[in-house]
Amino acid sequence: MKVVFIGAGNLATNLSEAMLSAGFEVLQVYSRTEESARNLGTKLGCLWTCDVSSLDSTANLYIISVSDKAISEVLDKLDVQNNEAVFCHTAGSVGMNVFEGKGFDNYGVFYPMQTFSKNKKVDFRNIPIFIEYSNNVARCVLTDVAEKLSDTVYVRDSKARKALHISAVFACNFVNHMYDISARLLEEHNIPFDVMFPLVDETAAKVHEMKPKDAQTGPAVRGDVNVMKEHLLMLEKEPELKELYELISKNIRKWGQ
Amino acid sequence: MKVVFIGAGNLATNLSEAMLSAGFEVLQVYSRTEESARNLGTKLGCLWTCDVSSLDSTANLYIISVSDKAISEVLDKLDVQNNEAVFCHTAGSVGMNVFEGKGFDNYGVFYPMQTFSKNKKVDFRNIPIFIEYSNNVARCVLTDVAEKLSDTVYVRDSKARKALHISAVFACNFVNHMYDISARLLEEHNIPFDVMFPLVDETAAKVHEMKPKDAQTGPAVRGDVNVMKEHLLMLEKEPELKELYELISKNIRKWGQ
Repeated sequence: MKVVFIGAGNLATNLSEAMLSAGFEVLQVYSRTEESARNLGTKLGCLWTCDVSSLDSTANLYIISVSDKAISEVLDKLDVQNNEAVFCHTAGSVGMNVFEGKGFDNYGVFYPMQTFSKNKKVDFRNIPIFIEYSNNVARCVLTDVAEKLSDTVYVRDSKARKALHISAVFACNFVNHMYDISARLLEEHNIPFDVMFPLVDETAAKVHEMKPKDAQTGPAVRGDVNVMKEHLLMLEKEPELKELYELISKNIRKWGQ
Repeated sequence: MKVVFIGAGNLATNLSEAMLSAGFEVLQVYSRTEESARNLGTKLGCLWTCDVSSLDSTANLYIISVSDKAISEVLDKLDVQNNEAVFCHTAGSVGMNVFEGKGFDNYGVFYPMQTFSKNKKVDFRNIPIFIEYSNNVARCVLTDVAEKLSDTVYVRDSKARKALHISAVFACNFVNHMYDISARLLEEHNIPFDVMFPLVDETAAKVHEMKPKDAQTGPAVRGDVNVMKEHLLMLEKEPELKELYELISKNIRKWGQ
């Protein structure tokens, strides 16, 4: 199966490398910026371009992996003369209906739910992939790709995928910001964040065995007002963090009762 | 070495079990509530009591592991006629000075930085333990216990420990609340939280390899306003979560710039 990648960001980089390893042929890579296109093209050993209106028309699958807001625009500019090709995007938060009324027949969504960075490889076998499709042609192609990459493939509609995406924002993006705050507070005392690794790992491991609500510990759920007051004092000089601390603690307390 | 445990909560339960396994002799367990005292006493095969003013006076070490606000009160009631014994508490947020002026000579703090639940065993070898002491007697005893339990023992004063504690609240307690929110949002769509495990694990694994600020992904750091707007709409019925989403996103955006 021949594939063209439209986009060269974190997800496109990780997905295209995984597909190459799994035996798919990547024909071409597009990115708006020349540097990104060249970098990924070089990495994959394929052609690259910055012109989305003149892509190779002989691929079986076009994977649109640009920022959520750019998908619709890219679809408008796309000019692939190939009725049998399948088109998909990879965004958790964008409905499949973004393809409607733009002259596509075989289309769908291919959403690997994971956090991707260019310089950290992830094992796709463990990543849940959520797919959705417009017809049987798209179903066959997207199912084939998903199952060759991952052990857990789900068919879910756009509504469920949006719920997954916002949940992932909390469980990943917001979690990472909590790590970041922790790291910065430690930095002020010249303590490296490494010291938190056992706690970070155990906190993640715990929710494999019990529900997050049962795993909740700390001053807020215990209602330890003295400790919370002292923490708020420590954050006096950082009003945003103080506000965040108060809001999260209030919510933990409320949910714990 | 003979030990008396004052407190029978999550930390006391985990620590006393680990000490028993490491060859320490637990003489007695105290808890304010009879049920907790009996449960832990039975688990450890030792005596238990609800009367803190009549503890066994022959122990070498008294570990005070009650809620942060109760430590001072417990110290006032304690009546142990033993000048050679060492007394310590296990609270990250309470200074060593809580012992001052109460007639103790050998005292200190023994803070294992981890999240403890009664029904989940943790491996103490990986837990960083932060100790602080009033004199050489306390130093010897606390160092000995810490090193028999863990591979990473640090000597840190109360100020540093308080910084560690508030950082741990963000990296653990608040992280867990993010998991909890994620789980509840999924529940509304009948999706089990299990589907998040690969993402949860990768998010934790990532910060072993790069700084949290470099690991940040998601709509907020990308400045993807459309996605954030849609997410806020999805949270319309839950004003607390909406406020939280806005505040965290604003902060991620600010720090990412």
